[in-house]
Amino acid sequence: MEKCTVIFQPTGKTVEVARGTNLMEAARKAGVFLDAPCAGKGHCGKCRIKIKSGKHKHEYTPLLAAEEIEQGIRLACLTWIQDDMTIEIMEVDIINDIMVEDITSASKGKLAKRTLDILSASEIEVGTGFTTVTLTLPKPTIDDNIPDFERVKRELKQVLGCEKISCFIEVLKKLPAILRKNDNEITLMLSKNDSGYDIINVADKKEAKPFGLCVDIGTTTVAACLVDIQTGEIKASANSGNLQMQYGADVISRIIYSTKDDGLKKLQQAIVEGTLNQLINKMICKLGISKDDIVFSVFAGNTTMTHLLLGVPAENIRIEPYIPAFRNAPVFRAGDILLGINKNAPVFTLPNVASYVGGDIVAGVLASGIWKGDETVLFMDLGTNGEIVLGNREWMLTCACSAGPAFEGGEISSGMRASSGAIDEVKINKYDLKPRISVIGEVKPKGICGSGIIDAIAEMFLTGIIDMKGKINKAIKSDRIRYNHNIGCYEYVIVFGGETEDGRDITLNEIDIDNFLRAKGAVYSGARTLLNNVGMSAAEIDRVIIAGGIGQNLDIKNSITIGLLPDIPHDKFEFIGNSSLAGAYACIISDEARQKAAEIADNMTYIELSADSAYMEEFISACFLPHTDTTLFPSLKKAMNL
Amino acid sequence: MEKCTVIFQPTGKTVEVARGTNLMEAARKAGVFLDAPCAGKGHCGKCRIKIKSGKHKHEYTPLLAAEEIEQGIRLACLTWIQDDMTIEIMEVDIINDIMVEDITSASKGKLAKRTLDILSASEIEVGTGFTTVTLTLPKPTIDDNIPDFERVKRELKQVLGCEKISCFIEVLKKLPAILRKNDNEITLMLSKNDSGYDIINVADKKEAKPFGLCVDIGTTTVAACLVDIQTGEIKASANSGNLQMQYGADVISRIIYSTKDDGLKKLQQAIVEGTLNQLINKMICKLGISKDDIVFSVFAGNTTMTHLLLGVPAENIRIEPYIPAFRNAPVFRAGDILLGINKNAPVFTLPNVASYVGGDIVAGVLASGIWKGDETVLFMDLGTNGEIVLGNREWMLTCACSAGPAFEGGEISSGMRASSGAIDEVKINKYDLKPRISVIGEVKPKGICGSGIIDAIAEMFLTGIIDMKGKINKAIKSDRIRYNHNIGCYEYVIVFGGETEDGRDITLNEIDIDNFLRAKGAVYSGARTLLNNVGMSAAEIDRVIIAGGIGQNLDIKNSITIGLLPDIPHDKFEFIGNSSLAGAYACIISDEARQKAAEIADNMTYIELSADSAYMEEFISACFLPHTDTTLFPSLKKAMNL
Repeated sequence: MEKCTVIFQPTGKTVEVARGTNLMEAARKAGVFLDAPCAGKGHCGKCRIKIKSGKHKHEYTPLLAAEEIEQGIRLACLTWIQDDMTIEIMEVDIINDIMVEDITSASKGKLAKRTLDILSASEIEVGTGFTTVTLTLPKPTIDDNIPDFERVKRELKQVLGCEKISCFIEVLKKLPAILRKNDNEITLMLSKNDSGYDIINVADKKEAKPFGLCVDIGTTTVAACLVDIQTGEIKASANSGNLQMQYGADVISRIIYSTKDDGLKKLQQAIVEGTLNQLINKMICKLGISKDDIVFSVFAGNTTMTHLLLGVPAENIRIEPYIPAFRNAPVFRAGDILLGINKNAPVFTLPNVASYVGGDIVAGVLASGIWKGDETVLFMDLGTNGEIVLGNREWMLTCACSAGPAFEGGEISSGMRASSGAIDEVKINKYDLKPRISVIGEVKPKGICGSGIIDAIAEMFLTGIIDMKGKINKAIKSDRIRYNHNIGCYEYVIVFGGETEDGRDITLNEIDIDNFLRAKGAVYSGARTLLNNVGMSAAEIDRVIIAGGIGQNLDIKNSITIGLLPDIPHDKFEFIGNSSLAGAYACIISDEARQKAAEIADNMTYIELSADSAYMEEFISACFLPHTDTTLFPSLKKAMNL
Repeated sequence: MEKCTVIFQPTGKTVEVARGTNLMEAARKAGVFLDAPCAGKGHCGKCRIKIKSGKHKHEYTPLLAAEEIEQGIRLACLTWIQDDMTIEIMEVDIINDIMVEDITSASKGKLAKRTLDILSASEIEVGTGFTTVTLTLPKPTIDDNIPDFERVKRELKQVLGCEKISCFIEVLKKLPAILRKNDNEITLMLSKNDSGYDIINVADKKEAKPFGLCVDIGTTTVAACLVDIQTGEIKASANSGNLQMQYGADVISRIIYSTKDDGLKKLQQAIVEGTLNQLINKMICKLGISKDDIVFSVFAGNTTMTHLLLGVPAENIRIEPYIPAFRNAPVFRAGDILLGINKNAPVFTLPNVASYVGGDIVAGVLASGIWKGDETVLFMDLGTNGEIVLGNREWMLTCACSAGPAFEGGEISSGMRASSGAIDEVKINKYDLKPRISVIGEVKPKGICGSGIIDAIAEMFLTGIIDMKGKINKAIKSDRIRYNHNIGCYEYVIVFGGETEDGRDITLNEIDIDNFLRAKGAVYSGARTLLNNVGMSAAEIDRVIIAGGIGQNLDIKNSITIGLLPDIPHDKFEFIGNSSLAGAYACIISDEARQKAAEIADNMTYIELSADSAYMEEFISACFLPHTDTTLFPSLKKAMNL
């Protein structure tokens, strides 16, 4: 078998593969991240690379223009290596894109404060079994020659008034040197168990503290915080893309990938080593602490993400009768999943409700306080999937809509996550059809994120660029409206290449709009189905809480206009931000919150939409702008004279 | 830095090292075992290799004859690599020397039976928290779609009548496939904990059983058994050398090696991966079970061996005030030490008494029943170290003698372990001074083991070949008595090269004898010191129990003759075999035995011989044949007219 060497620029990562290997496979093997929402099937066009040299075969794709082919641009998933090659990666390596936020930032203070308020209002006690003790031991002599560990226990028993003290092997390994290094003064981090205490870490510094790691594992985005367990203060936070994206944008493609040889292992590595350990390293470097000081961890993710985090087969999630491997995973140890914190730190995963409603939603419900109020709340998590909860302290219904990744920019030709360079607001002038945009960060636009797409579609609808079906009005004469021969449909140009970061036009085409309408239709019809299940109308909802990646810059009016949100008074809507992270944070600082999370998961009734006969009809009606039944959108009907 | 390639024949293992590297170091790096009781200091002569080709430097040693040098024979530790080399390994690779015994063998039945008798006589309950349950679960449907783990728990709760059921991550990973493979029939291995049960393994076969591994980790020899935990039956046993031997024969050399870079790690690897995992693999292959079926493990070893097994720094054991890192190690998991059994199997190590009296002695005391009888027993473990216990149910004293490895053939030029090819009995004809020997196995003799050396020295003494000081009578004319110019002393030839396995003479020289007299002197004077501590004479001892590698073929009369054992009636002596392994076995089959072991360790009073002012005098007197005070050996005095 002939071997070819492939070099990926600008990092210079190099890999040796057999002749004929697919370039996407080679990139994965080299540890080079390429975005691949379609999991390498050749239809999303996100894995564009530039060939600097080397013989190769490639398959024709309408996603590349002739001049791009000319310049050496290819889709990695449609390219096969024939000889030694040098490749230029054009997209930013997602994992270098980690943002470690300043610990004084308002958003974190807000997340902590809001969560503490909810816990306090719910009479959930804040407090954990983690504590530190600093001891100065008597120096050993020939007459008092008891071993190091027994010497520590002798002293600890007096301090704690407890007989049963154990430790982990790493502690026993470190103990002799630390005792002798620091004149028998040591700081112990202790974790309470059923019958006594475990020594989970030992340090020679008095100021050593136990930290907790809380993480929201989104299908697209991962957000993490390091928390001082004793004070509850958030000391650092960071977020990045989920490196599993190279194996597909949505949970279904990842589950399919997980059934391939080594697929499950690769997906677990992508989230743990590729994503989480990178985030953790950045945060511990910033705080100047040791990874052994992180003695607890809590993860909120959807059912699939939680399975893949733990390396547990997820394939039955998508096979009828849709059986996950677990609802409440036991508390494992960080070393079990090679997580880069203290090997013995407990790993608590928020419980799942069902195959497609996971611990992230349970965390969101916990953090938003729905479960303890009298108000009937509609909770919508608009991330890669769309999960919905309807209920109050008496009852809670939940369902999952197959919204796909559109809300986070997936399956949209110019789509991207809500990070630097993303257009997050769009306003179209109804006379000249020119858009006014706002971009995240002080950079040229690179793409458009969820909230920007909602604005654009609403404005295109209101200005008559598109009709109820999302089809572009060909009669309009504008340089921004044109036929795209490559993909065979019309498109609207939001920003011309001359003003973008990479020189490519930022557009929304009819396929993009159709994808987005199906996403919003899935969510809206899911909410309708839950309401129908309890015989309620939208007007009877007391409050709508919106969470998820799409959140902060979402325009309520536009979201109603496109038929994503129900047409009820705007003051009933509330953005809660990353409620999954907030719920995970609650579980770090409160043992009682973790118990409450299990109760919440048990008390939620899951509605399987695919088994609900009325859902498909609801869905089809909801894939229009705003809906086939315009009486559901009275304010819009009036404004537009529908 | 110039690199040289070194090939070790006959295995062909190859390693690349820097020019100038010591050949012993290169062998270790290549994973080639060379015996090195002196830890590579050039004075034991055990690391003989033959150079087939390649430039090298070597240091002169009297341990090699001129004709051996001529033939290319070198000591690896005194050879430095100058170019690419090919080396022939002449000694058997110790780890290929694993003996897996037949499960029906009498000795194992005896070990099990004797231990069960002791436990029963002591009213110690046999029984553990391990059990198996076979379940057939209802098939999941869209209406009964609870997850796999919760489905198992629902059924288990009914069987066990217990609410708290947890599992390890490996079980959760295996569960979905096993359930679906076998039509929802599964066998679970359960381990009871403080509040409920842990599922420690899951299998698709009904006949899957939980096994326990019990091991005696000797400094020189490692012996292991696999036990059916539920019936207590020993299903396989195996033994081999301790691969740590390449880093020195005694605990002191190993502790010193452990303080070098990576030394501790290498020593841990040598025992766990190099020795234990090999023994385990041989046994599981024989039984046709999975390593995951071994769900519990118990280790008995001296204090240093236990530290090195766990990878815990041992250096303070040999530095005044001699503080081990622990006495009672917490119960760790097999995965913590990379032991090749079920990763979550508890690892129980028998507690230490002091720096030089470890869990092997506690196991021996447990298995021999000293702690529960009225008789005053002298317990002697004659392994690489000599540990002694004196006592009964009321009190127990213990001490450790620096006997070195002589009882297991170490530091004796023709010495070897009591395995195939070892001379284990010697009788010398007083007229022609020709020896009659017995050899283990049906092979030509290769060397001489402990019991053989005792016989030989006793017979040489009785026949007048050596005097009280162990010096050879030069006046005797015999082709078996000659001066060895290489080492500069006289020697007695037991077998001439023409009749040995490797063509080399098997001899005992004055240095060997001196080494052995110091070993026996250390043990005898240790026993005397314990007796003196309680004001007892040897005659007052009710019973002498002899354990350890030297055991089975030890001749009592000869042992008294050389002054190793006290001169009391022969019927007071009892061989107990490997009592350390027997104690470990007791701990596998009985939870109560493990508690008893901790109590035994707590109740033993350790006498530090180096701090005992009278000991040195006792020792010097005991290094003669049989002793300077011949009144201590009345029977011998009478017989020999001393």
